[in-house]
Amino acid sequence: MKKLINDAETVVDEMLDGMVAAYPDSVRRLSDTQVLVRDDAPVDDKVAVVSGGGSGHEPTHAGYLGEGMLDGAAAGEVFTSPTADELEAMIEACDSGAGVLLVIKNYEGDVMNFETAGEMVEMEGTEVAEVVVNDDVAVEDSLYTSGRRGVCGTILVHKVAGAKAAEGASLDEVQRVAQKVVDNVGTMGMALTSCVTPEKGEPTFDLGEDEIELGIGIHGEPGVERTETMSADEVTDELTEAVLDDLELDPGQEVVTIVNGMGGTPQMELFVVNRRLQELLDERDIETWDAWVGDYMTSLDMAGCSITVCAVDEELKSLLDAPAETPAMTVR
Amino acid sequence: MKKLINDAETVVDEMLDGMVAAYPDSVRRLSDTQVLVRDDAPVDDKVAVVSGGGSGHEPTHAGYLGEGMLDGAAAGEVFTSPTADELEAMIEACDSGAGVLLVIKNYEGDVMNFETAGEMVEMEGTEVAEVVVNDDVAVEDSLYTSGRRGVCGTILVHKVAGAKAAEGASLDEVQRVAQKVVDNVGTMGMALTSCVTPEKGEPTFDLGEDEIELGIGIHGEPGVERTETMSADEVTDELTEAVLDDLELDPGQEVVTIVNGMGGTPQMELFVVNRRLQELLDERDIETWDAWVGDYMTSLDMAGCSITVCAVDEELKSLLDAPAETPAMTVR
Repeated sequence: MKKLINDAETVVDEMLDGMVAAYPDSVRRLSDTQVLVRDDAPVDDKVAVVSGGGSGHEPTHAGYLGEGMLDGAAAGEVFTSPTADELEAMIEACDSGAGVLLVIKNYEGDVMNFETAGEMVEMEGTEVAEVVVNDDVAVEDSLYTSGRRGVCGTILVHKVAGAKAAEGASLDEVQRVAQKVVDNVGTMGMALTSCVTPEKGEPTFDLGEDEIELGIGIHGEPGVERTETMSADEVTDELTEAVLDDLELDPGQEVVTIVNGMGGTPQMELFVVNRRLQELLDERDIETWDAWVGDYMTSLDMAGCSITVCAVDEELKSLLDAPAETPAMTVR
Repeated sequence: MKKLINDAETVVDEMLDGMVAAYPDSVRRLSDTQVLVRDDAPVDDKVAVVSGGGSGHEPTHAGYLGEGMLDGAAAGEVFTSPTADELEAMIEACDSGAGVLLVIKNYEGDVMNFETAGEMVEMEGTEVAEVVVNDDVAVEDSLYTSGRRGVCGTILVHKVAGAKAAEGASLDEVQRVAQKVVDNVGTMGMALTSCVTPEKGEPTFDLGEDEIELGIGIHGEPGVERTETMSADEVTDELTEAVLDDLELDPGQEVVTIVNGMGGTPQMELFVVNRRLQELLDERDIETWDAWVGDYMTSLDMAGCSITVCAVDEELKSLLDAPAETPAMTVR
């Protein structure tokens, strides 16, 4: 499979340099690491919000660096957790003394390395708290995960925690609103095609010309069902039902929805999915307060999408509406 | 080839409904048309800026509807010009009496239908002006084009013209700044794979497993060279040299750059290209004032990218920096 890269060995390094070259006034790279931080980190008198994980999910996480979202983003190799040492360097670079919230996607490597890094910085006197995002309703336990996987709902956690931190809230308060998102969000994804990692250069898994996979993970981990090709409406029905069954929302509940592209999906198709998603919510008296459509948490060049639904109250709406200025998301 | 659609016959219609369902407070669809307009159109005492073209290039054009960019966007069928009747309806819906700038990509169908629509509305007393964007430096004349094709530079025209109109400038002034962009921008694209239209369901053209095409058009029109797979740096060198040769910039010139994904390209790869692009500009003493990286003007699911360079002066920088609020671009 062809890729627009120079070398699988250096692709993450070169990507990070390309990000800094794109946003030299707003992000910088910590020397000798794969960590990007806000150019003005640490920001005085503000809790820092940091995240990180394997590369290949861009714009996650570095695309969300900036005012009102993340202070630091650590990039591992493709689909590989950042090391504890790099996470430690990130946390230290972002802490202004007000403490640091670690936003962790629920994969065993990420959880272990973030927690190790947290213990290391705590010994130096840095206060940390964590939230573990596990919004993928498809499967309990998975290839790299105990419990549920953390996927696109993570972006809502970045937005809400970042907005609360920007208000000058305490670490406890920032953690509380981040956890509120985690407790109220569900996601399910699907794939038309496999992703292809730079290292392997071949599809991670085989899907036939007439097959799709429902419940797929963002690293190509197995889903819940491999089935014959379906229409966009049928796919949307399957994903939405699974998410809504998990959330058990009351009629009249307001929600934010995300139709997320996996990296290789034309926007045209995402909007076709959104059309049906909003019909389904309307039929169930669920009120969409805001609808996001685009590539937020990708899986390299996978064709497919995920659907996220998050119940919101006045507090979450206010934080989602707060200003943000990052490469991948700006809110006025 | 698998697609996340219901029916090739209805895909544009359903996409447009999915867009309105995503942004119900900011865009609306003119009844019985494939035209989307700002919800508050016509905006009093403001020149309207409108565009349109075949579908399949999303977020172009409807993604740029809103404050500081477009007032109207007409969607044709996939890779097919909107009809003159639909363009006429769009122009009329957007005109507040201050006149309408038509931003036309240089394809024969688009130019003919926009000009016919312009003549029709002028007979009813609506003042119109036009700019024809022809930024693709790859080829002179093409499958659907006399002269050069209009590609990703069009987004800069949307931004600059929309900002000038938002200031309350006259139609002449809005046209003047739009033309200034057209006179100072160049783009060249390339493909790793062909796009696949919903109707055909098969690649528009054949590229071997070890072949790429330089100078490709956004509908898969032939480029300047089909060659063996190259590294990202080599590809970037080829595209950048072609654009810079066309622009003939003086050392010290400030520019805006765009590394644009064609729809099926992971962001990781776009940043690897941006890294090399910025190195090349630096070597030539060209100063990047702003760098955009992302999917701005796509070609369905094509894997590949384009590179755009636009020389900017104080006026263009001020207009590019002005506030905008649209689904695909927000500037604070």
